[in-house]
Amino acid sequence: MLKSVIGLDLGGTNIKAVLLETTSLRILDQRTIPTRASEGASRVVENMALAAEALIESAGRSGAKVMALGVGAAGLVDRGVVRNSPNLPGWQGAVPLKRLLEKRLSKHRLQITIENDANAFVVAEQRLGAAKGLDNVIGLTLGTGVGGGIIIDGRLYRGARGGAGEIGHMVIKHDGPKCKCGNQGCLESLIGAQAIINRYNDLRFRSHLKIEKYIDVEELAKRAKKGDPHAQQAFTETAIILGAGLSNLINIFNPQAVIIGGGVAQAGNLILKPAIEEMKKRAMPYNRKNVTILRAKLGPLSGAIGSAILSITQ
Amino acid sequence: MLKSVIGLDLGGTNIKAVLLETTSLRILDQRTIPTRASEGASRVVENMALAAEALIESAGRSGAKVMALGVGAAGLVDRGVVRNSPNLPGWQGAVPLKRLLEKRLSKHRLQITIENDANAFVVAEQRLGAAKGLDNVIGLTLGTGVGGGIIIDGRLYRGARGGAGEIGHMVIKHDGPKCKCGNQGCLESLIGAQAIINRYNDLRFRSHLKIEKYIDVEELAKRAKKGDPHAQQAFTETAIILGAGLSNLINIFNPQAVIIGGGVAQAGNLILKPAIEEMKKRAMPYNRKNVTILRAKLGPLSGAIGSAILSITQ
Repeated sequence: MLKSVIGLDLGGTNIKAVLLETTSLRILDQRTIPTRASEGASRVVENMALAAEALIESAGRSGAKVMALGVGAAGLVDRGVVRNSPNLPGWQGAVPLKRLLEKRLSKHRLQITIENDANAFVVAEQRLGAAKGLDNVIGLTLGTGVGGGIIIDGRLYRGARGGAGEIGHMVIKHDGPKCKCGNQGCLESLIGAQAIINRYNDLRFRSHLKIEKYIDVEELAKRAKKGDPHAQQAFTETAIILGAGLSNLINIFNPQAVIIGGGVAQAGNLILKPAIEEMKKRAMPYNRKNVTILRAKLGPLSGAIGSAILSITQ
Repeated sequence: MLKSVIGLDLGGTNIKAVLLETTSLRILDQRTIPTRASEGASRVVENMALAAEALIESAGRSGAKVMALGVGAAGLVDRGVVRNSPNLPGWQGAVPLKRLLEKRLSKHRLQITIENDANAFVVAEQRLGAAKGLDNVIGLTLGTGVGGGIIIDGRLYRGARGGAGEIGHMVIKHDGPKCKCGNQGCLESLIGAQAIINRYNDLRFRSHLKIEKYIDVEELAKRAKKGDPHAQQAFTETAIILGAGLSNLINIFNPQAVIIGGGVAQAGNLILKPAIEEMKKRAMPYNRKNVTILRAKLGPLSGAIGSAILSITQ
């Protein structure tokens, strides 16, 4: 009998769900449903459970027994409890997501694990994507938030208590702007989507152009590709800071590869090319020679795929 | 028959050598001799060999056979070759220290290993010092240079090719001052001994006081303890940047402990207390609750002790 495993990626907008065959890690089925985070905790858990049950049913039709369920969530994850998740507004403090899902899905007798979403991302890319076969890999997700995951000697590194990999909250300018996390000058506060938009609007303002309040990074990338010099410069200035951040990861970890994913990475060489150039100026020559910087390959399902893998390998 | 192992710490001023009993890791004997780096490569190797031979003789007298020799050296160490060592001036590029010592000491048939000195420091502190018994530990040496070493799951983490742990070259101000390594705004360029002295002189200059060209951090600490407000402020301003650096290590690694050693750490709470306060304002609450910041316990022999341990455990 085929065996399978479910991965759920709990995003701010959507819950992405995949069903993977356990030995080949082939995707058997997938679902995407709205998170509806604003409707509260129990609604989100219910939506996750519904996505999981749709895939359990699908697995049944293909004769593949579901063994486990892995969830990837933004925030700090410690033994099934999610803290400080930006995608779970209104859930004050710690959310016992593992316990809530176990209760709701008890009749399916699944082993349930909860993991940080950027950790899931790097695991997916290391097992099936851009870093396939590499043992020392750093993953970086660039979006509204900046997330990180660390693979050491082929295994996800969680730290002493599950809190490792908060690369988005690495200070890169100690006297820099306040970050949502309470720190100052974090990578996220300097290269997160909002920082890029702010940079663009600052440049427009200085050229006496109208401020664009409701633009997103995707639109900014379109404008840069069409030749908008302020959009191009906003990406280049961001890339210099990203390059400094990459040099830190390379000097600290001496990894074989750094994998970059997330919505902002869709801007491609608008940001990645100048970031890599900047990194090369900064990182220790020996460490930089032995690393490659790669774009993520698995696309928007990587978090769900990695969560599924983690549920059976950890 | 007792077995023993030799550790050498190749410093810019002195070579420190210890003889350890292999099972208890007790220090059986020790030597300190001048490095004489300015007299060239072969002289330094000869001095290291003489220190080793003095301890081999001493081991012979106590009936303890010497099994291995470990060397700790500043710079990047890759399979016995030392690159960019500030303590080996005039040695251009890469120095094959392992091969040179093996040749000079061939009749003693020792297994010889070369390791980065800050790596050796953290290994010694984790096996015998402040971090004894802990599995996830970061070591930081504060002095003219700023060095780092990473213990993950009880073992030294070297990265893909031996270059990991260059924490002194973590960027903490991306638009900060040029660092000797070629990068900009590195921790070392901002909190290394010279940066602290420069900070003191800047403060004196602004108060129309004489610039003190030939002062060192030890003297600065004395002045601060006697109430010199500029000396105190130089330490406090440095501590804020160190605190930001500590928050990075804690957010990235979620370690059980960070161990701080090196000459600048001798200033004690002039720098460590405000640094820890700053770290607490910056690091993720969960990670910061689960870490302790400790002063190194083993003193100036830690590099030699760690090198000895690494020669028999890796």
